[in-house]
Amino acid sequence: MRSVGDSGLPRGANPGGQDQRTERDGGRRPGSLRVVSLGPGDPRYLAPESLAALESAEVVVGYRTYLALVAPEVLAGKTIVSTGMRGEVERCEAAIEAARSGKATVLVSSGDAGVYGMAGLVLEVLEDRDPTGEVEVEIVPGIPAVCAAAALLGAPLMHDFAVISLSDLLTPWESILRRVRAAAEADFVIALYNPRSRKRDWQLEAVREVISCVRSRCTPVGIVRNAMRDGQTVEVTDLARLDPSRTDMLSILLVGNSSTRIIGGRMVTPRGYFDKYRRRPAKIIDGNGSPLPA
Amino acid sequence: MRSVGDSGLPRGANPGGQDQRTERDGGRRPGSLRVVSLGPGDPRYLAPESLAALESAEVVVGYRTYLALVAPEVLAGKTIVSTGMRGEVERCEAAIEAARSGKATVLVSSGDAGVYGMAGLVLEVLEDRDPTGEVEVEIVPGIPAVCAAAALLGAPLMHDFAVISLSDLLTPWESILRRVRAAAEADFVIALYNPRSRKRDWQLEAVREVISCVRSRCTPVGIVRNAMRDGQTVEVTDLARLDPSRTDMLSILLVGNSSTRIIGGRMVTPRGYFDKYRRRPAKIIDGNGSPLPA
Repeated sequence: MRSVGDSGLPRGANPGGQDQRTERDGGRRPGSLRVVSLGPGDPRYLAPESLAALESAEVVVGYRTYLALVAPEVLAGKTIVSTGMRGEVERCEAAIEAARSGKATVLVSSGDAGVYGMAGLVLEVLEDRDPTGEVEVEIVPGIPAVCAAAALLGAPLMHDFAVISLSDLLTPWESILRRVRAAAEADFVIALYNPRSRKRDWQLEAVREVISCVRSRCTPVGIVRNAMRDGQTVEVTDLARLDPSRTDMLSILLVGNSSTRIIGGRMVTPRGYFDKYRRRPAKIIDGNGSPLPA
Repeated sequence: MRSVGDSGLPRGANPGGQDQRTERDGGRRPGSLRVVSLGPGDPRYLAPESLAALESAEVVVGYRTYLALVAPEVLAGKTIVSTGMRGEVERCEAAIEAARSGKATVLVSSGDAGVYGMAGLVLEVLEDRDPTGEVEVEIVPGIPAVCAAAALLGAPLMHDFAVISLSDLLTPWESILRRVRAAAEADFVIALYNPRSRKRDWQLEAVREVISCVRSRCTPVGIVRNAMRDGQTVEVTDLARLDPSRTDMLSILLVGNSSTRIIGGRMVTPRGYFDKYRRRPAKIIDGNGSPLPA
């Protein structure tokens, strides 16, 4: 087993946020590249670390829809590199190039950059474009869309869960369906990303059929669209009544496990504490840090 | 399919953060209860919404280890209700009681409150203790430990993944192992919470054996302990060399899928963009918002 670095961090991982770029080549500093998670989009859910990275950046690279989630004053005066959908590789290349030229560079990703985001691709492209490891890279995590959606629905993810993208652009459909079947049979709560697009209009119905073979028709299903962004909608339905046409690429679906139930209109997957644990006394402390009299 | 509320939000869900408590009973206001995610623990990853909820709270309830993650100045002057491990139900009851008495109450949960956190239990207890729905409840999401760990390791979660707790206190061991087997066979990246405790010292070895039946001995495994907290450690190893004795309840393990590989010391699960997509031109905008000459 290998420990990664003295600090326990892999090269370039820099949760302290300090500028750790070293001087090389008589003063020319190699660049830094931070892959910054934006969370669901609302600034109230943007971590201070992500905001600080954006504010200190010289170059910000991103899909234009995600760049639009950043307050304009944060981006003012910076070099912005924006691409459209499916410009993933170009965004990574542009960010790496900027970082190699010595600029403090940020590549933005919505939700958590590590969940179907840009973190993986940038490390792959970096291997190709920066084989000598000049560029320091840090991944700044964020609130993934699945957690934002779950919070709006109640507490559907309280037990083991599986996260599956229904997009078959990069994954064979057979693999996706095999994962859905396995997750349903093993009673995972199932989160579905990318349930439907204009061109992929039959997949969710197929998934519903597979899940319905092993799980009750009454299994709660939550649909959240644009979680914590403009146009947010939250719906709770069940497997039998799920209408795939009400979903799109901006929707996340959460399918309950066999224990998930509706409490006061919300989806809750119990973990068992309420039934199992005996009570233990709580300690109450007043504003001065002293225990209150019982 | 039912739409939950005019705003698309369930009762009590209040992402706007405004005080929506209504006047009843000639001025006595029913309480509000916010279940606040602390994220990994470092204030740099605490969302502004979580901080604002803590600052405006009159009563803050939590497990004492998690309360210690909150800056003392944020808690100063507030009533603090802290309990030890396994005081989950008591914390929920104390929070609900405080909210019912009209106090602005926060129940804290580390990571994301919706992932093995307090969100579900509080909704269960609320059903019992507040059947008339007086208390407004909001779940404030945060960065889950699995995403913090993934960011430190690289980008292991870029493809479909399963999250499984190995704690069999509340779940039969057979169910846990069934989920591990299903996730391994369907080629999910697998995140393991609670891999080992002093009393549960053989489970991770059993899990390793099950996964090793279907996945290569060389499958990358990442172990992160205390992600983004004091004492953080990050290790990358593989299935064959995984040493369960190096893990504990503060560790999260990430087991790669069949495509996960090590790039520059980091775990990366490719999604396929790098090979599949043709390049499309990026648009570069200077600080004034005008496209730069090519």
